[in-house]
Amino acid sequence: MARLRVHNFSVSLDGYGAGPAQSLDTPLGVGGEQLHEWFVATRTFKQVYGEAGGTTGVDDDFAGRSFKNVGAWILGRNMFGPIRGPWPDDAWKGWWGDDPPYHADVFVLTHHPRASIPMAGGTTFHFVTDGIHAALDRAKAAAKGRDVQLGGGAATILQYLRAGLIDEMHVAIAPILLGSGEQLLGSVDLLQLGYRCVEHVPAAGATHIVLKK
Amino acid sequence: MARLRVHNFSVSLDGYGAGPAQSLDTPLGVGGEQLHEWFVATRTFKQVYGEAGGTTGVDDDFAGRSFKNVGAWILGRNMFGPIRGPWPDDAWKGWWGDDPPYHADVFVLTHHPRASIPMAGGTTFHFVTDGIHAALDRAKAAAKGRDVQLGGGAATILQYLRAGLIDEMHVAIAPILLGSGEQLLGSVDLLQLGYRCVEHVPAAGATHIVLKK
Repeated sequence: MARLRVHNFSVSLDGYGAGPAQSLDTPLGVGGEQLHEWFVATRTFKQVYGEAGGTTGVDDDFAGRSFKNVGAWILGRNMFGPIRGPWPDDAWKGWWGDDPPYHADVFVLTHHPRASIPMAGGTTFHFVTDGIHAALDRAKAAAKGRDVQLGGGAATILQYLRAGLIDEMHVAIAPILLGSGEQLLGSVDLLQLGYRCVEHVPAAGATHIVLKK
Repeated sequence: MARLRVHNFSVSLDGYGAGPAQSLDTPLGVGGEQLHEWFVATRTFKQVYGEAGGTTGVDDDFAGRSFKNVGAWILGRNMFGPIRGPWPDDAWKGWWGDDPPYHADVFVLTHHPRASIPMAGGTTFHFVTDGIHAALDRAKAAAKGRDVQLGGGAATILQYLRAGLIDEMHVAIAPILLGSGEQLLGSVDLLQLGYRCVEHVPAAGATHIVLKK
């Protein structure tokens, strides 16, 4: 049975998955890039972008789980790009260049229809306008027995959490305050939704937790 | 210059300093006692209550900071006891028995006046009805140059944070979810209030952070 998994979702000590005032120049909001310092330093991250080096150890072990047994992805629209409202044209094809690091079907949640975009490296972006359940059904079909990974952002993860659809979620709590922005931890009653913390692995770059139903 | 310090304030992964449904039987709310498992296991905690043994290491080092250079305490009323509204009589003298672990003047914030209570071991409970600034002034005077420690709970800490009066705050993030209750982290814009995370020490029992202005 295919599961819906979240990996490497970083939040601040005060629970924010992005800082305030997100924009094209600061897609993670003010201060938000600090959330991912532990991740971009890992060997796993560098390998994705064809670079050598990077840290090994706890942070890298968690980063690497993201790439195991994943057959399709779901992204919120704001994670796909900064454009709001109807698509003005077909120019925007994501933040990741010609060869995005997904290498699979990626289902982007949006209210505005758009034709699918085949990219290099096996990634195809599809645009789903009929809601989170429809996106999950399509992603599971595309994953052919492997799991589906939900990439974010925080608002999209909250939608899936509230619907009880996330089976496993790795959150990395980074050692910073953001003060405001898009809140994940603390904005929803995870206990009432049936989640428990089943792993807690503190490391220098972040405290890693895994929540499961 | 005397400082106002918070130590060993435990919150859940989702930022709660107490669980829901606090009562006489469950003063920390449902599940709240799990917040302090790291603390009650330490050698420092056991020594306070005259017991031998206990853990040493990071958790104990942080626990021990609480007892250095503190000349007076401030507590919210709910941390002093479960009684709400006017005091029915003078029977309630705190959760801690005849010899409370403060050994100093303790200023309890309340809307309802009551005579001071001298206890064994040098602790005296005073009841302050004219607000958080007055309590801090009286505590600083009583501390005679040493620091004042703010014991909690979450609502009282939030009041002092919002007034910009806390100089240093140690928070221990315990590896549990509480889902709801009294929220500290995530309920106030600490960055806007001028706080930064100046220490981040992950340990098995909790991730310890120190916030300073």
